[in-house]
Amino acid sequence: MSRRTDQLHLGAFLANSGHHVAAWRHPEAQADASQDFEHFKRIAQLAERGKLDALFIADVVALWGHHLDALSRTARAEHFEPLTLLSALAAVTERIGLIATATTTYNEPYHIARKFASLDHISKGRAGWNLVTSVVADEAWNFGRDQHVDHPDRYRRAEEFHDVVKGLWDSWDDDAFLRDKASGRYFDPGKLHVLDHQGEHFSVRGPLNVARPPQGHPVLVQAGASADGRRLAARVAEVIFVAPQDVESGQAFYRELKEQAAGFGRGADEIKILPGITPFVGRTREEARERFEELQALVDPLVGLRLLADTLGEDIDLSGHDLDGPLPDTPPGQRGSRRDQTIALARRENLSIRQLYLRLAGANPAIGTAEDIADLFEHWFQSYACDGFNVFFPVFPGTLESFVEQVVPELQRRGLFRREYSGRTLREHLGLKRPANRFSQEQTGP
Amino acid sequence: MSRRTDQLHLGAFLANSGHHVAAWRHPEAQADASQDFEHFKRIAQLAERGKLDALFIADVVALWGHHLDALSRTARAEHFEPLTLLSALAAVTERIGLIATATTTYNEPYHIARKFASLDHISKGRAGWNLVTSVVADEAWNFGRDQHVDHPDRYRRAEEFHDVVKGLWDSWDDDAFLRDKASGRYFDPGKLHVLDHQGEHFSVRGPLNVARPPQGHPVLVQAGASADGRRLAARVAEVIFVAPQDVESGQAFYRELKEQAAGFGRGADEIKILPGITPFVGRTREEARERFEELQALVDPLVGLRLLADTLGEDIDLSGHDLDGPLPDTPPGQRGSRRDQTIALARRENLSIRQLYLRLAGANPAIGTAEDIADLFEHWFQSYACDGFNVFFPVFPGTLESFVEQVVPELQRRGLFRREYSGRTLREHLGLKRPANRFSQEQTGP
Repeated sequence: MSRRTDQLHLGAFLANSGHHVAAWRHPEAQADASQDFEHFKRIAQLAERGKLDALFIADVVALWGHHLDALSRTARAEHFEPLTLLSALAAVTERIGLIATATTTYNEPYHIARKFASLDHISKGRAGWNLVTSVVADEAWNFGRDQHVDHPDRYRRAEEFHDVVKGLWDSWDDDAFLRDKASGRYFDPGKLHVLDHQGEHFSVRGPLNVARPPQGHPVLVQAGASADGRRLAARVAEVIFVAPQDVESGQAFYRELKEQAAGFGRGADEIKILPGITPFVGRTREEARERFEELQALVDPLVGLRLLADTLGEDIDLSGHDLDGPLPDTPPGQRGSRRDQTIALARRENLSIRQLYLRLAGANPAIGTAEDIADLFEHWFQSYACDGFNVFFPVFPGTLESFVEQVVPELQRRGLFRREYSGRTLREHLGLKRPANRFSQEQTGP
Repeated sequence: MSRRTDQLHLGAFLANSGHHVAAWRHPEAQADASQDFEHFKRIAQLAERGKLDALFIADVVALWGHHLDALSRTARAEHFEPLTLLSALAAVTERIGLIATATTTYNEPYHIARKFASLDHISKGRAGWNLVTSVVADEAWNFGRDQHVDHPDRYRRAEEFHDVVKGLWDSWDDDAFLRDKASGRYFDPGKLHVLDHQGEHFSVRGPLNVARPPQGHPVLVQAGASADGRRLAARVAEVIFVAPQDVESGQAFYRELKEQAAGFGRGADEIKILPGITPFVGRTREEARERFEELQALVDPLVGLRLLADTLGEDIDLSGHDLDGPLPDTPPGQRGSRRDQTIALARRENLSIRQLYLRLAGANPAIGTAEDIADLFEHWFQSYACDGFNVFFPVFPGTLESFVEQVVPELQRRGLFRREYSGRTLREHLGLKRPANRFSQEQTGP
């Protein structure tokens, strides 16, 4: 294939002290990052200095995890709510995109449409919505349900939720507001549109009491890996987060997803596919490896054993076993399942219990010099295995700093990444068109 | 009664271009304030320069108003969503409180508890929640209902909603988070509390995935004027917004509400009562009067007639009548109703239609010099008719500027208002105690 002329897109995954499960214990880490807005402000401004496309926040609307012995040894029990945090970050940044996760399973489309429209106005066009469905029962219990909604219904609800939100974003034409002091006309009533949606899950009249977002619609992000999730992504997502094992499976997903999108009348350049990656950067490979090992050594055995139990299943009790001895005899799970793959890995590489949980804790790291990381990015990008990366920084601020100071300049030298923001909005950073208003007469597309 | 030794509390009511219905048409006003975060940032920082206790935002989760001819001549059709706006303002202010309105009728308590807890952390203890119930059918239509929830059920839901939110805020003890890098213990599982609420309207397990707010609980604000609303206020509100006609009715409300609160075991100083007030300040009384008249002259007749129709009822058609002639013969409404009072006012003062709607547009203004306004504040305060005021600024930024530059220094000279913030949190500004955690053993109160 010919060399690509477009550039990489890079997102920074926000997490309290860092993405690694032991990040908060690192000597450099701010252990109380979870409650310190100033910490997030520094991270956001640093990522913006690196000209990254966007900040991204995951979300679960519950305390997730029942095994308190392990959970209480991680920093995952508490964090800022995404929309409030990103709104605050909008006020102290100027260019970087702001992507918040919000579930369609336990929300109302009017609230979500309104909050993201408001964030898009506050940030002057930098909002993105990572649309998810809820999969953990812990969330259901906080919203009056005994168990989580089953898969097909969750996705039917998500599709309808999405359609309502986009309809509400089109409540006003872009030029509806006249604000003519002389005549006294503030808006043109002919440019106000009532959605009047009546569907299986929602009945929403509208219109929204927020003007059309600067981006038309905030950028739609999706990460569902199931068949239903991929179908929804192909139809509506503009950015897709994925977790491929290797460049070949990355290429396969990339090709298939963009073909599936074509079936919905969408062009390949209307969707940006960003695999997750966890870089450990050093001035030398040895230094990078040391940084990785330093963090791995901080993984508490209780946390490590919990990672194993979550992967292998609750039927395996490793509590009486020597952590530096082998995994005891364990029946494999379904062929190709994570359990099956993990047991096979332990056998193949003759890993101890500790070595095995550390593989899970430090999953798929990219360890090396800035040149190594840039080589890897370039290879994936030029192989059409991705359009960029969603970067998981192991520890803040150190690993983000070395990325911004070493990897970004190397990517810039190679012409693979912007030297300055050329646009103002997230949509412009990503090279995505501004959608037409479905109600406007000017609209020509489907 | 003896002279009070405490000081006034002052809130600033945020509105797009200003609180007056014609504010956006004023030559000084920024007509597109509704979409400009920088405008709100300037307002917030100016109010903070004036050492005000808090910013306050009202809310309706719908486009409110069906008469588009009139609505399209006001700036009320669109505005930022309160929680996103106040989160952004938290990042660019340091001391001023941030009170957002959120309805209990079309929200879920887990979301509300979490967002306000998050805002309280982001702002380091400056969040307040104005708890309301939804009264307009327009909101119901956006949330799958044909008509709004009836009054008693709305308040039963509100009470339960409130109790769940406060329970969730107590999910963690204040000292639950150890973050001990050496031992690897991030939190103490014994200091995590599962709410497990099962009630008439809600079933919410908890716990919240946000640490206990810096204020313990964000400050609880309420404005309900009905019997149910007053009962709820007496039980739970810490700040109450009211709209009394005169100092005598203010005193009566003040006395009765604080007595009612005593019935719930609450002290008089646990509740701050803040009437709304709309000041027009001038260097002279003439200048103040001119400012008022200048704004009144900008009221569009269509907007004025709509104010009249909303007050008198839809059965009165004034469209064919001379605006400068008298109100035509109109049957009064129920004795004491707003219709009855408004018709009586027109007859008593022999007002034209235009003069009558201007009375509604410029309701209860406080017009005068800084000394006049300070006299009025002092009189109400020393008469125990209030603990301060929620100030409606007619036009931003001018009327806030003159308030900060002229009225605030006069109040400071009289010892009625702080010269500097002495505390860091909204609760400290208001002189309200930090609530104990209901689950903690240290708790001694009810």
